[in-house]
Amino acid sequence: MGRLPNDRFLRALDEQPVDRLPVWMMRQAGRYLPEYRQAKERAGGFLALCRNPELAAEVTLQPVRRLGVDAAILFSDIMVPLLPAVPGLDFAPGPKLPHAITDVEGLAPPECADELTFVYETIRILRRELNVPLIGFAGTPATVATYLAEGGAAKKEFAAFRRLLHAAPERAQPLLDGLEKLMVRYLTRQVEAGAQAIQLFDTWGGDLSKQDFARFCEPGLRRMVSILKGLGVPVIYFARGTLRDVGATAYGVDWTVDLAKARARGPVQGNLDPAVLLSTPAAVKRAVAEMAAPVARTGYVVNLGHGILPDTPIANAEAFVEAAHAVKVEG
Amino acid sequence: MGRLPNDRFLRALDEQPVDRLPVWMMRQAGRYLPEYRQAKERAGGFLALCRNPELAAEVTLQPVRRLGVDAAILFSDIMVPLLPAVPGLDFAPGPKLPHAITDVEGLAPPECADELTFVYETIRILRRELNVPLIGFAGTPATVATYLAEGGAAKKEFAAFRRLLHAAPERAQPLLDGLEKLMVRYLTRQVEAGAQAIQLFDTWGGDLSKQDFARFCEPGLRRMVSILKGLGVPVIYFARGTLRDVGATAYGVDWTVDLAKARARGPVQGNLDPAVLLSTPAAVKRAVAEMAAPVARTGYVVNLGHGILPDTPIANAEAFVEAAHAVKVEG
Repeated sequence: MGRLPNDRFLRALDEQPVDRLPVWMMRQAGRYLPEYRQAKERAGGFLALCRNPELAAEVTLQPVRRLGVDAAILFSDIMVPLLPAVPGLDFAPGPKLPHAITDVEGLAPPECADELTFVYETIRILRRELNVPLIGFAGTPATVATYLAEGGAAKKEFAAFRRLLHAAPERAQPLLDGLEKLMVRYLTRQVEAGAQAIQLFDTWGGDLSKQDFARFCEPGLRRMVSILKGLGVPVIYFARGTLRDVGATAYGVDWTVDLAKARARGPVQGNLDPAVLLSTPAAVKRAVAEMAAPVARTGYVVNLGHGILPDTPIANAEAFVEAAHAVKVEG
Repeated sequence: MGRLPNDRFLRALDEQPVDRLPVWMMRQAGRYLPEYRQAKERAGGFLALCRNPELAAEVTLQPVRRLGVDAAILFSDIMVPLLPAVPGLDFAPGPKLPHAITDVEGLAPPECADELTFVYETIRILRRELNVPLIGFAGTPATVATYLAEGGAAKKEFAAFRRLLHAAPERAQPLLDGLEKLMVRYLTRQVEAGAQAIQLFDTWGGDLSKQDFARFCEPGLRRMVSILKGLGVPVIYFARGTLRDVGATAYGVDWTVDLAKARARGPVQGNLDPAVLLSTPAAVKRAVAEMAAPVARTGYVVNLGHGILPDTPIANAEAFVEAAHAVKVEG
């Protein structure tokens, strides 16, 4: 395959020289864009949009066209690979399950990931259309298990999975191992279909104690990262509120993490507070310049510290991308 | 005033020798106790309970009697000092305001803290009844402002205050300064009434970026801590998900923070994941022993990393306190 017209995202992850800092935004295909809301309505809802390759590809492309970001991320949801096991899964807008799942028996076998053909078809369409790299993704076992054990995103504390780790580790570990196998299969199919980088979303893994994370999560995450890197793609590990080493190519960090310290350990991505994008274009530009100054060289991908918020004014999203591209890159 | 029958909590904060590790639990006067639920019903709801010195003192004493914890914490809520400014404030169960407040003009003058006589009367009653130290408390300016800007605890992202910091710093800073003055007055009255230690609750301060925290919060927190220490009481600064130096006597940390690293910087309090108390007494005891082992000496107060969850079985709360007292203390 030939070199992409714009590959500065992949070059930054590989610590090769870049002309500008690459930038994209988590959840950049989302409700803040009117064209996204229209496509979602046309599809007949969030899940129908995920399952429709033409429309899923369309919304993936929207922020690339409108904002000029340097990477696209597959439009989907971390719960989508659970559909074969949980046909009643819905989104409202967070995941909503007909029942909680706390056992590996509640999962479908990993091979069922092959049934998610609409995802791989979306990726194939995108590779024909895109002039920037395409990121595939999945949730980590602990983060997906957090929603499974809770039965969705309804309760505030998300304590059910952390309770399970202590009340029944002999059930929690096989559940995590089963999810690991499922996600590895799912991500392998994504890479085969054309995903050029993988991001692992660990929204809840950072909410485990250091001991629980080391015991239940880290070994599996290291296995996953190693297999995915073996497929020839960079792997970004994103966690909320923490910086934990799992052998990844790069780390996505949120705004509570010190970016310069994180960068000292390897390539990083992040970390502007998405709430800043609710302010004004001038304030966004100031904040991006301040954030990027200590890390303005290759090995850094400008991003938010979490997904863009639905009520973000488009002018502020534009200011974010412009400000990232305006940062002077150190050689 | 004579020495308390049980002062190991204060001795640990002062790094004097202790016979056992002191232990208490955030939100230890709470819904997991049937006698608490009865008192709340008798009072006519949460806010009525806060405003009733006899019953507020009674529920403060309940966990001391039932569990044998080594400190009591005033039963109240971080939003109580806002009552003079926001008479329509309610709890359902999180704070609920009739309107959002994003200006210092929305606050009452600090002197209005003197009107909260029911709080000081509760403290006076407790000092007559208690044989362990009494902790007074307040929310930090940033944490209280987070609820004020949101208009309550309804929305999930709590982005309104972080938005304000960037959209209108010229309004955010006076709001924080006004809250600082209010809390200093309120806490001074608590100490005068008999509180023997102060805990500052910063549930949301840890959710600010390092830059925003340093710019908007840290100077005010350092002023507050310095004034309170000047009154002769130890000050514990509790934040969620982070460890930030504000000159406090001790730091309350949650379960995502490395306890040994935190202890290396000074006295600490914490940090068991409250979800562990939803498991079994045996699992709780194992987890406490593992948590305490690296820091089993004076300068460490055993606690949870956040408030005890309402559906905690009492047997697990008992196991927590027993396990803390069973830890062998290094001389």
